[in-house]
Amino acid sequence: MTSQNNWHCKKKAPIGVFDSGVGGLTVAREIMRHLPNENLVYFGDTARVPYGSKSKETIIRYSRQILRFLAAQEVKAVVIACNTASALALDVVREEIDIPIIGVIVPGARAAVYATENKKIGVVGTEATIRSKMYTKIMTDMDPDVAVIGKACPLFVPLVEEGFAKHKVTEDVIDYYLASMKDIGLDTMILGCTHYPLLRSRIKAYMGEDISIVNPAYETAMDIKEILRSQDLLNEGQEDAVPSYEFYVSDAADKFKEFANSILPYDIDTTRQVNIEEY
Amino acid sequence: MTSQNNWHCKKKAPIGVFDSGVGGLTVAREIMRHLPNENLVYFGDTARVPYGSKSKETIIRYSRQILRFLAAQEVKAVVIACNTASALALDVVREEIDIPIIGVIVPGARAAVYATENKKIGVVGTEATIRSKMYTKIMTDMDPDVAVIGKACPLFVPLVEEGFAKHKVTEDVIDYYLASMKDIGLDTMILGCTHYPLLRSRIKAYMGEDISIVNPAYETAMDIKEILRSQDLLNEGQEDAVPSYEFYVSDAADKFKEFANSILPYDIDTTRQVNIEEY
Repeated sequence: MTSQNNWHCKKKAPIGVFDSGVGGLTVAREIMRHLPNENLVYFGDTARVPYGSKSKETIIRYSRQILRFLAAQEVKAVVIACNTASALALDVVREEIDIPIIGVIVPGARAAVYATENKKIGVVGTEATIRSKMYTKIMTDMDPDVAVIGKACPLFVPLVEEGFAKHKVTEDVIDYYLASMKDIGLDTMILGCTHYPLLRSRIKAYMGEDISIVNPAYETAMDIKEILRSQDLLNEGQEDAVPSYEFYVSDAADKFKEFANSILPYDIDTTRQVNIEEY
Repeated sequence: MTSQNNWHCKKKAPIGVFDSGVGGLTVAREIMRHLPNENLVYFGDTARVPYGSKSKETIIRYSRQILRFLAAQEVKAVVIACNTASALALDVVREEIDIPIIGVIVPGARAAVYATENKKIGVVGTEATIRSKMYTKIMTDMDPDVAVIGKACPLFVPLVEEGFAKHKVTEDVIDYYLASMKDIGLDTMILGCTHYPLLRSRIKAYMGEDISIVNPAYETAMDIKEILRSQDLLNEGQEDAVPSYEFYVSDAADKFKEFANSILPYDIDTTRQVNIEEY
């Protein structure tokens, strides 16, 4: 095989996307939309979900195992679609692999810094994401004048996962978490957890319709596109070629397929189970 | 060493207690109270909590790893303090070890069958526990005339873990889950998850003060006492001897210690972290 053929193969290789569970499918969806020729391998760590209440050390160990699994699938690049893993593990694991890897925090932070006019930005996320102060660090590096207020909202994930997104108790929980962020002049808010876009309209209604809500998923898809283009790794596709999407989970809970089918624009046929602890 | 000395050593060996996280400490507390000479080794699987939304296959794999860890600590008996693992894994793993092992379901079921007068019993628990119908099966085996109504309440665990036990949203969530169980004549209700005793007074107030609430923790302590006595394995203790309590977790989140200190009658000094995936 010539080296040109090798490169051709590399372009056709899939992008790996991983998350603690189903939430990262909101990022996968944006990649499918905006990079329609790319093949994807998605891994959801449903056996160990959630990540947001766990320690940095544990999140790094889990992320390493998942990267070894994705490397075995010969992915050409990796998107960490989980805010918690992006905040706690990306800097460490980036040193350990030789393919492009991005998280959702830098794209989301940049979008918020662009969006804000009064430089007052709120961030909601898991306990671990907020405690890491990663959004704050990255945004103040980009613009030292921005003021960032972070708030952990640990009940949002179980509320979404249990189908309470539209229930009235969610209104009370939003009020409980966000009362201190209301009426302090924020003009931009980052949804710093992949589950939160499913509460987007309720959060916006609570905070006031004027607030700009930033969902890092779209920005992340744009970033991986740009990185692949700059490294000549974009899959230009072929006429009539249909991209391949593969879904792997660490626990075979049926919930994954149900949730996936409610998020993605088509129905998933099969999810394959992997014993991720062996990687 | 004579065989009598060996037996003496065996009596001094600790009881192993495990749970998906901190909830099983409510069971450990009852064992400390009612078997004050026994040494304990507690393991909380805080890196992979919760279990209640995961599959039977995964819960069995996790339980096997934890039993191998506890065996390495040379425990003389094991108490599975987690309802989900008791419901899904106990029957399988019992065949694989040669020391006494009990769960919380049989003791709780028996207490409810004794407590009920009109033979109408409610059970609340995680999705996996309720789906297994294990409480129903065991109670109808004990008394074919009992009618059992089960209800999964998956938000109760995150509400307790996030400190919402006394918040008004918990009232709404209790109403959401239990409205269908109210006013249908239940005289007994089993709290089939180790977190739920922390909502006991609110559940009782909602269901009506006449209902008998069964918390399997006390019954489980009585059962392990009886089993150890029948096998001549009870630790009779020595004057001035202080029992040893050791706490292990799979994730070093500080939350464990905080929560433990709110449940146990004394403050825990140290918790040791174990990479449970290696067992």
